[in-house]
Amino acid sequence: MERNSVSPLYAAIDLGSNSFHMWVVREVNGSVQTLAKIKRKVRLAAGLNNQNELSQEAIQRGLDCLAIFAERLQDIKPDHIRIVGTAALRTAVNANEFLSQAHSILGYPVSVIAGEEEARIIYQGVAHTSGGSDKRLVVDIGGASTEVIIGEGFDASALTSLKIGCVTWLERYFKDRYLTSVNFDAAINGAKEAIETIIERYTHQGWETCVGASGTVQALQEIMLAQGMDEIITLPKLKRLQRQAMQYERLEDLDIEGLTLERALVFPSGLSILIALFESLQIESMTLAGGALREGLVYEMMDQMRHHDVCSRTISSMQQRFQLDHTHADNVSNMALALLAQCPGWQLEPPAENLLQAAAKLHEIGASIEFKKSGDHAAYLIKHMDLPGFTRAQKNLIAELLRRHNGPLTSLPEQHALSAPSAARLLRLLRLAIILCHRRDQTCLPPFSLRMEDNKLTLLLSAKWLINNPLTRSELTQEATRQTDMGWPMVVTAQD
Amino acid sequence: MERNSVSPLYAAIDLGSNSFHMWVVREVNGSVQTLAKIKRKVRLAAGLNNQNELSQEAIQRGLDCLAIFAERLQDIKPDHIRIVGTAALRTAVNANEFLSQAHSILGYPVSVIAGEEEARIIYQGVAHTSGGSDKRLVVDIGGASTEVIIGEGFDASALTSLKIGCVTWLERYFKDRYLTSVNFDAAINGAKEAIETIIERYTHQGWETCVGASGTVQALQEIMLAQGMDEIITLPKLKRLQRQAMQYERLEDLDIEGLTLERALVFPSGLSILIALFESLQIESMTLAGGALREGLVYEMMDQMRHHDVCSRTISSMQQRFQLDHTHADNVSNMALALLAQCPGWQLEPPAENLLQAAAKLHEIGASIEFKKSGDHAAYLIKHMDLPGFTRAQKNLIAELLRRHNGPLTSLPEQHALSAPSAARLLRLLRLAIILCHRRDQTCLPPFSLRMEDNKLTLLLSAKWLINNPLTRSELTQEATRQTDMGWPMVVTAQD
Repeated sequence: MERNSVSPLYAAIDLGSNSFHMWVVREVNGSVQTLAKIKRKVRLAAGLNNQNELSQEAIQRGLDCLAIFAERLQDIKPDHIRIVGTAALRTAVNANEFLSQAHSILGYPVSVIAGEEEARIIYQGVAHTSGGSDKRLVVDIGGASTEVIIGEGFDASALTSLKIGCVTWLERYFKDRYLTSVNFDAAINGAKEAIETIIERYTHQGWETCVGASGTVQALQEIMLAQGMDEIITLPKLKRLQRQAMQYERLEDLDIEGLTLERALVFPSGLSILIALFESLQIESMTLAGGALREGLVYEMMDQMRHHDVCSRTISSMQQRFQLDHTHADNVSNMALALLAQCPGWQLEPPAENLLQAAAKLHEIGASIEFKKSGDHAAYLIKHMDLPGFTRAQKNLIAELLRRHNGPLTSLPEQHALSAPSAARLLRLLRLAIILCHRRDQTCLPPFSLRMEDNKLTLLLSAKWLINNPLTRSELTQEATRQTDMGWPMVVTAQD
Repeated sequence: MERNSVSPLYAAIDLGSNSFHMWVVREVNGSVQTLAKIKRKVRLAAGLNNQNELSQEAIQRGLDCLAIFAERLQDIKPDHIRIVGTAALRTAVNANEFLSQAHSILGYPVSVIAGEEEARIIYQGVAHTSGGSDKRLVVDIGGASTEVIIGEGFDASALTSLKIGCVTWLERYFKDRYLTSVNFDAAINGAKEAIETIIERYTHQGWETCVGASGTVQALQEIMLAQGMDEIITLPKLKRLQRQAMQYERLEDLDIEGLTLERALVFPSGLSILIALFESLQIESMTLAGGALREGLVYEMMDQMRHHDVCSRTISSMQQRFQLDHTHADNVSNMALALLAQCPGWQLEPPAENLLQAAAKLHEIGASIEFKKSGDHAAYLIKHMDLPGFTRAQKNLIAELLRRHNGPLTSLPEQHALSAPSAARLLRLLRLAIILCHRRDQTCLPPFSLRMEDNKLTLLLSAKWLINNPLTRSELTQEATRQTDMGWPMVVTAQD
């Protein structure tokens, strides 16, 4: 047996204003696989005094962390390593004192990147991990800066780094640790002043969708999900979180469902900045990006990963990683789309077609674990794996569709990717497509047509073909009963 | 990105005396992946009258089933198809009536194989799916025949097919459906009469291990497991099942934990035959084989799968399927074995080394799903995937070792592959090996030695190396604390 060649390692190190991160990965069939993640809360920005000098303590905290990173760096090729410093190191007047020692510890220089360059790399991280090719507004709230970008595909057209961050705003507006409306208002207004400078240019350029990158937005989304809200971040939801926070007197009293201890300190400051962005730029809604600065650094080193369509790169990578039969997967996907095309009256939401395709192309992924319970295995894999290009809610729906891709039919659980009737309809078509293609040979697909009246499906197939294919016939009849029993009427009719 | 070439399909059809089975598979990087399993309980043997004529009803049941199989056969290459008939078709005087119609439905002739040939293929199915290269006694109890084989590696040295089977014994000795000791004694003695003919030759040849193939043995093992026994089948356990059965008056009253409805009818007859085999051949214990006739048919078509060591073929296949870094895996495995070699006083049971190696070589399998919770993902995969060469208990231990391969340490659950102290020691060495190799480069492994006194481990490493490798140092120190906290004393000591 031939052995896989092992792909080389890559490392991205990000010396942020709040934490230092090291991320070691390798590329596996078009996917980025994490081998190590090391994070230390160095709080460099907190070590800056009024003269923007880094304290000796802060410098030492940073260097201790780099000694740990350095050990792992030794085994990685020099051109597979990128090390960047951001806002705190841009600001510190004595940054060189830290940087020269850092160089000798790491064996590599640290690039302190300008705010615009940081914005550009963040955009690459977002573009490589988010679906859709719409014109996007990207927002990344860091410890000491906030990047705001407009771009389309892999090209950014507006890049800005604002000097507002969740650590600096904590120290400036919540220094007394009180969660008063006075503090919140000051923090929000302070952020708005900084954002003011870009409003005209950005609103003039415009965008279709908005995504938030980085931990601040992720932490806010996690609170919303923990409280039973869906994954879409909106201004009313942010205001609701602010009201929740203001029920507590001081920062250390905060006890909000879904808020982790680690994030609690910068929660009010990060929330204030995000509210300011929503209000100033009149953002309607925001989803979470799959990546930001570190992902941008890594994907730029792996330039073969650049793909016009992130979703189809992800699906193709998954097919390869699990050795799926992609010809058969394409047949099922084409069949599912052909069935969908015969149900124009259903008027499914725009992402439906892409989700149906993804589920069809991955429908055998669970069988690669075990034939028995292959639906449950598929759901397990999809839920836990990273699927760049798909949001969390979309991944969840694909998982639940695949859990039910064959065998007994059960109703879908609550999900937030599509309306419930649309999701059920995708499931019906997916199952039907799989049965119609089960002979795995597209040349023997039967001539058929699907009629749709409201929720009722009528599948018409040649009588002769049905007689000659008793296995398909029995499966289709069983499926019609199963769908009908679920309250989704379906009949199979033989025609001459 | 390059796409995998899709491997062709194979089909094995087995027209057994009780059920007809069709199994469609493909080969994926040295593993057999199931794409379809179709089974129909045709009960051909039950359709034989006293003159050994198949009834028209039985013939029709068989042909109806073949029409279903035929549909799927159309898409498979002729030389990737094997169709065999066994005891009922060997016995039926009017078999040709069935066989000629079967040929025209399937488009292929059915090979009615002789009992010895059946035994030979079963042995291949066992050899391709069971670990160890010991001299083996293989027993397969079918509907109308029982195959008994002795072999070593891939070569069988004694092949016998006895005319005793769980369907024929049901009709002969439990026709009244009463679970009396009279019926059991008659069934056991009847089987012993048939076995008598081979006792001398078989006990003269001898064997080291004994495995049972086929559904009868599997069903008995499942009952034992459901009742909390371990996976090793012994005569006292079989006798216990017989006593349980005799608490019920008639077959239809049987309500034994772990006994499925499907298997209940042939449970007393199969149990009687197995007891007779244990007593006549003085079998001490038996484990379950990973395959039998159908696996033999398939593996013989895929001759590239022949591998001297089934366990290492399985591990290598898993490494490829999950794109693991096999160089790193080998390093960790060598390190783990080197550590084990320094603990000779532990005197672990023989399979321990092989299990440690397997766990080390697959330790990154969970990270291919997601870096977070990679231990849990590894355990999920190992538990659900087929690992030819490893028994169920061994798979379970590998899964539980991998669940704890890094991060916080928790105690292993009850398992039946090794003694509890041995299993815990494997876990300690596995974790230590992973930490020592975490730089993924074997040239930078530190010179070290491990000292063992009873349960206490002392790891000696050069002081200079520890200073230069702060990440490893902190991980080793943390690990020493974790092991010590579990009651497994461990210290890391710097030496000059």
